[in-house]
Amino acid sequence: MAEEMNTEAGRLRIAMLAPVSWPVPPDGYGPWEQVVSNLTEELVAMGHEVTLFAAAGSQTSARLVETVPHAFSLWPEAERNAPRRFDSVSGLLEGPPDFRAFEQQHIATCIEATRDGGFDVVHSHLHVHALVFSRLIECPFVSSLHGAAWVKASHAVLDRYRDQPFVSLSDAERQLKPDLNYVATVYNGIRLDAFPLCTEKEDYLLFAGRLAPEKGAAEAVEIARLAGLPLRIAGLIEPQHQAYFDERIKPHLDNRNVTYLGLLSQRDLAPQYQRAAAVLFPISWCEPCSMVGIEAQGSGTPIIGTRYGYLPELIKHGETGFLVDSVEEAAAAVQRLTEIDPRICRANVVARFSMPVMAAGYERVYRRLIGQDA
Amino acid sequence: MAEEMNTEAGRLRIAMLAPVSWPVPPDGYGPWEQVVSNLTEELVAMGHEVTLFAAAGSQTSARLVETVPHAFSLWPEAERNAPRRFDSVSGLLEGPPDFRAFEQQHIATCIEATRDGGFDVVHSHLHVHALVFSRLIECPFVSSLHGAAWVKASHAVLDRYRDQPFVSLSDAERQLKPDLNYVATVYNGIRLDAFPLCTEKEDYLLFAGRLAPEKGAAEAVEIARLAGLPLRIAGLIEPQHQAYFDERIKPHLDNRNVTYLGLLSQRDLAPQYQRAAAVLFPISWCEPCSMVGIEAQGSGTPIIGTRYGYLPELIKHGETGFLVDSVEEAAAAVQRLTEIDPRICRANVVARFSMPVMAAGYERVYRRLIGQDA
Repeated sequence: MAEEMNTEAGRLRIAMLAPVSWPVPPDGYGPWEQVVSNLTEELVAMGHEVTLFAAAGSQTSARLVETVPHAFSLWPEAERNAPRRFDSVSGLLEGPPDFRAFEQQHIATCIEATRDGGFDVVHSHLHVHALVFSRLIECPFVSSLHGAAWVKASHAVLDRYRDQPFVSLSDAERQLKPDLNYVATVYNGIRLDAFPLCTEKEDYLLFAGRLAPEKGAAEAVEIARLAGLPLRIAGLIEPQHQAYFDERIKPHLDNRNVTYLGLLSQRDLAPQYQRAAAVLFPISWCEPCSMVGIEAQGSGTPIIGTRYGYLPELIKHGETGFLVDSVEEAAAAVQRLTEIDPRICRANVVARFSMPVMAAGYERVYRRLIGQDA
Repeated sequence: MAEEMNTEAGRLRIAMLAPVSWPVPPDGYGPWEQVVSNLTEELVAMGHEVTLFAAAGSQTSARLVETVPHAFSLWPEAERNAPRRFDSVSGLLEGPPDFRAFEQQHIATCIEATRDGGFDVVHSHLHVHALVFSRLIECPFVSSLHGAAWVKASHAVLDRYRDQPFVSLSDAERQLKPDLNYVATVYNGIRLDAFPLCTEKEDYLLFAGRLAPEKGAAEAVEIARLAGLPLRIAGLIEPQHQAYFDERIKPHLDNRNVTYLGLLSQRDLAPQYQRAAAVLFPISWCEPCSMVGIEAQGSGTPIIGTRYGYLPELIKHGETGFLVDSVEEAAAAVQRLTEIDPRICRANVVARFSMPVMAAGYERVYRRLIGQDA
């Protein structure tokens, strides 16, 4: 009865299953957690009853269930690096935490909470490892892929659960695994007031994002050199890409032509977007829906990017940026930046990549899955 | 209706969830899989309806559901060692298989199969990672620990599911995690005809088992030296213990006093047990219920072991072997081996550590869990 009243009133009871690499929202890096935060806050503002399953330390206006004691990336070093040793007093094998078990505990906490019929839908933002629980619950279990299908080893699991509902974060993302049961594409949406429009630009180019080969940081250095403009680089260096950074980026750092700003928080990154002449996005992989491109365009900054992933969906060529096929074309595009109106960049993001638009998109997905099509 | 008839007739429908490190039964090493095989075959012989969820390549008289394409330890090397690389043609990140996902798929296949009420009980022999599924099914889910609580990092999960039913493989095993809901101790049981009684012994000592520090291979070398008898060593060298082998064992190998036989199959190990003057078992950890001690004693061979783990439950001091507190005491015990009657060793295993006794023990557990107490 309560259930019927709930849905009749249009109020959805949503279990939001966040990743646990970072808190929700993250302080610095953590794009999946940022999207989850944006979506959750907007759905609550729309009047929905959202329960957020996330790591301790998360902040939300939804009901929060803290499923693990720390976000994995912030786990205390002493525990994370505990040596494996047999303790003859306790008789136990000591060692680092079992992160796999903690993540499963995180998922199971959410799934177990669905057993009393308290939710209309579970929305998973975890990678494929949550899918194995999806057939064990009564309510729909929908997964936002966040690029997880990029990892070929995930396809065995995706194949097994391909009939479950999936949301792609861009139409392009479906190329990574075309044969899933996609129920919608919903673009990531940013918090517009965190990235205000700025129409006055300065003479520097910006690269933001993980410093991984497929993200194109090295190509950005080359584009800036060809274009004759300084480049600022901001983003996370992951351990597996330290050598890439040391070989391809570090030799060019001179604090004049090329500067590395480190990993910036959203607050510190926003002004870098705002005043950049352009953001360089020379990716060579199927980027599903990076926040960087959206945040930059939302700040009124043109993007110069390759024809990969979601960029052809984000960039209106000649209007909000330029789609290019080489570093030379990218450098040539730098000479055309005056053609771009920052207000049109902003308007595109407001209309298609903002929190309200994202939340409305997911709301439609939830209603369709529970048979509440408008 | 069918369900009631089934249980009225005393026939249980059992989902047997095996580990997938090795096929069931294993060809060489694989004690958990060996126990699962022994239990499954005996339960089938008793008339129960057993479905074995195991890796492809398993052999059983139960109904077999092959949940993963290869046992993990036998996974094709080319796939296992596939380099991580971005394939620009497919757009995918290639790399090795996701073994975590395959194991979860294995578990989920079993759990999903319970949804139509087709099983009376699920019996898990997997480590703690299966527990997170245990509250999502209707029928009881009982776990044999197989020493999993030895790993301190597992305790976070065990705490969360401590109310689920657990079977300890010896009373001693409970020391590793005393506060779980133990419903029984059921000793591992061996296939008696695979380890025939032999009353004629030869002048050598035997160490069998993983060559890990807590298993006491180095201490066995010292005991044999003190006792003045040759030592044969059989067992698996795991990568993490290669250095231990190289430093503590290898320097003593001379093919005369100390010989390493390699990892032997059950068939090749059995005659080594049978003719040994004694099997040395100088463990320094809470060994839950190693097959080695049971197989050796079942062959009529005395065991000289430390007062750890299940050894005080297996060894009747002075009757089926000797419990000792030092390598010197162990060496002294070698001089008393003529006091041991191989027939009494055999009889102890027949009465307490054989397949029929094990299967009867688990049958009692299953019936108690479904409210069919005798």
